[in-house]
Amino acid sequence: MASDRINDQTLQENQVAGNGLLDRRLFLMRGVQFGVISSVAASSSLAATTSENNPADPVWMHVPGKPFSTYGMPSSFEDNVVRFPTQNEAVPGNGVSWTPLHLMEGSITPNGLHYERHHNGVPQIDPKQHRLLIHGLVKEDLIFSIEDLLRYPMQSKICFIECGGNSNAGWNKQPSKSEAGYFNGMVSCSEWTGVPLSVLLDEVGLRKKAKWIIAEGADAFAMQMSIPIEKAMDDAFLALYQNGERIRPENGYPLRLIVPGWEGVLNVKWLRRLQVTNRPVMARNETSRYTELQPSGKSRMFTFPMEAKSLITSPSANMVLKTPGLYQITGLAWTGRGKISKVEISADDGKTWADAELQEPVLDRAFTRFRLPWNWNGKPTVIKSRAIDETGYVQPERNKLVKERGRHGFFHYNAIINWHIDSDGFVSHVYDKDEQQQKNSDISIDSGWD
Amino acid sequence: MASDRINDQTLQENQVAGNGLLDRRLFLMRGVQFGVISSVAASSSLAATTSENNPADPVWMHVPGKPFSTYGMPSSFEDNVVRFPTQNEAVPGNGVSWTPLHLMEGSITPNGLHYERHHNGVPQIDPKQHRLLIHGLVKEDLIFSIEDLLRYPMQSKICFIECGGNSNAGWNKQPSKSEAGYFNGMVSCSEWTGVPLSVLLDEVGLRKKAKWIIAEGADAFAMQMSIPIEKAMDDAFLALYQNGERIRPENGYPLRLIVPGWEGVLNVKWLRRLQVTNRPVMARNETSRYTELQPSGKSRMFTFPMEAKSLITSPSANMVLKTPGLYQITGLAWTGRGKISKVEISADDGKTWADAELQEPVLDRAFTRFRLPWNWNGKPTVIKSRAIDETGYVQPERNKLVKERGRHGFFHYNAIINWHIDSDGFVSHVYDKDEQQQKNSDISIDSGWD
Repeated sequence: MASDRINDQTLQENQVAGNGLLDRRLFLMRGVQFGVISSVAASSSLAATTSENNPADPVWMHVPGKPFSTYGMPSSFEDNVVRFPTQNEAVPGNGVSWTPLHLMEGSITPNGLHYERHHNGVPQIDPKQHRLLIHGLVKEDLIFSIEDLLRYPMQSKICFIECGGNSNAGWNKQPSKSEAGYFNGMVSCSEWTGVPLSVLLDEVGLRKKAKWIIAEGADAFAMQMSIPIEKAMDDAFLALYQNGERIRPENGYPLRLIVPGWEGVLNVKWLRRLQVTNRPVMARNETSRYTELQPSGKSRMFTFPMEAKSLITSPSANMVLKTPGLYQITGLAWTGRGKISKVEISADDGKTWADAELQEPVLDRAFTRFRLPWNWNGKPTVIKSRAIDETGYVQPERNKLVKERGRHGFFHYNAIINWHIDSDGFVSHVYDKDEQQQKNSDISIDSGWD
Repeated sequence: MASDRINDQTLQENQVAGNGLLDRRLFLMRGVQFGVISSVAASSSLAATTSENNPADPVWMHVPGKPFSTYGMPSSFEDNVVRFPTQNEAVPGNGVSWTPLHLMEGSITPNGLHYERHHNGVPQIDPKQHRLLIHGLVKEDLIFSIEDLLRYPMQSKICFIECGGNSNAGWNKQPSKSEAGYFNGMVSCSEWTGVPLSVLLDEVGLRKKAKWIIAEGADAFAMQMSIPIEKAMDDAFLALYQNGERIRPENGYPLRLIVPGWEGVLNVKWLRRLQVTNRPVMARNETSRYTELQPSGKSRMFTFPMEAKSLITSPSANMVLKTPGLYQITGLAWTGRGKISKVEISADDGKTWADAELQEPVLDRAFTRFRLPWNWNGKPTVIKSRAIDETGYVQPERNKLVKERGRHGFFHYNAIINWHIDSDGFVSHVYDKDEQQQKNSDISIDSGWD
């Protein structure tokens, strides 16, 4: 990491928190050379060298390239950047495929990598045959074809969807050993476009006793979820498009309910029915799942908004910092309650914290990318991030979360995630020291399949 | 379009410009039923009906769905939503594939549909072998591998890229008969993430005489383009990611220069070399192309920023409004000089104009989606949109553009586009009446291939 342009004094002067966290302006300083983070035991990297090493024209400059394509795909050299399916072996269509957040940058999730959560596979729906029925406590039942819905006024919103069970391995006694995305990647962020639900509910005319909406999907599981009428009338919408094109089958083609900031299961895919009622349906996913016994003896139920959360995506689990020196810490933060107002990073296991740079624009209920430079001294340490949202809510440490919620739960795990870096630069997931000393032998977390 | 909830008086009271343009708040009114816009002679649509017509459970609710996928693709029912390649027959790798803007919504272009413009096909580059050389009027030549570049501080920006030759059919004597995207779709909008060019130029150290950067691509055409040093140091960056994942081969994998708001050809793909010089390289694409003789006898050259432009994507060419009644007019606006401040729509061939609703967030040098409700009375008319950007620039009528620029040009066509609607609801592209009467028999526009 020797450089004739930046010296130890500069680094010292630009420290913003303990153990080498540096002022974000250092990103723009001349001669700041950052170290290599690799996912595997990689061959030694080429550092910037003089032009004497300029390679000859590569072979691809001497042959015509491939022809035009009507629909593009990623390079074959990126075939490791994929969703990671984890399925219930008894029901192959029940499970998850995780977004590889640790291999991505920016804040938009491309449609091919948006996480999946299905209960009985991906239905192959003919949009000409698909219908949406709105009925129940309404003045007039109505049925809409997709063609009908396409006529309605549209709105677009860039927002995240996060499964209520995301990061559920965090409840386990031992820290997950998975990569950051394959442990926390049941969350993705797209631009969704569709029809405000309030417009359709106004059209059918709500009766006075209307308090809930039961949304039902057209998959073989017939997913049903209950949503309070206030949220339905506030900002829910019926999405037809994701990132500019029609929604893909695994994300609800041809129609998905979007409930911004609330748990993913409410964003019902393959939407076919909205029943207006005076009480929740008490479906399987509201009772045997998504309901959690607390230490107080009471249960959490209908815990809709996803609380503020952040995740350092690089460096993260199973990556290696090849040498001491400068690194870019980067990750994602999001909150179901509005905008992220601040992300703090600690490189000394939580003793001191510094504000990360937030990538503009910071949008309501969307991924916010954060970054901060860090000078790693080569000694073992723990790095972590915590999100603070515009309501003032602070992402909790794990021991605080477990104390509040107990360990009979499975959902809504949003604790601070600790990445331990050893003297070889290897990164792994660890719990807080307090947690590591706890005896939790009485707890056994199930797989979560239902 | 009969409705017991909205009547003629309401429509009359909400008119905001001539021939039925309505207040945007009408989007949120109860019982506002919008008409069908179809791309072909479609079968009669199902309007909203009573639940007596509720179809039985569809077949896909009775069989398990498809399994998880590591990388998703659009529904087979959407296989018409594709890029449209138009190639130089003599050199198959030289041409364009157009983004189907008329089939899309929102403001993000998914990577599979981002427009392509190649001169000798798409090189298949091994990122481990790829190098970027920065040399010329610098204090120290440097070569960077992709692994090197991935260490540098990143920034993300949602921005459009538009080919300088986009909408070039607009210069022809007769209006293009193509769909809106296949005439104007050499423009797309993504979130790009990469390394600020200023950081790397600071690292090599610019010499005093440095005035230009020559950027070279690693394709078989060896594209070269000249960029003023001020822009290079201002907001240009080296993109590694597009919409969260690594850039795709046809958009420059593994490295693309992004020059926000400037003509697409400067956003050099497969970037391999940046030579710092004291003058432009005067490459083929700066002299025989992208240089245009004006009526004054002088030539336009190095006309870098793409001026403000807008396009109604629906209803647009070759679509059909099935009946008189309410419609949503929607489209895209963008400017290479900052943010769009206003989009105006006329439904009476330019006599009166109303402000469209702009989808928030309105971002610098990005697509801005606009929408406005319209009550079509069934009579023939012309609808059009015009963009105004934060510099005060107003998108020109075609006759004004042609008067200023002459008809020896080929590039930077940003005139207002007129969609004529006949009494059958069929939409087609027309020029202004003045233009239609002009005699331009001396002009022959070439194909633009080079």
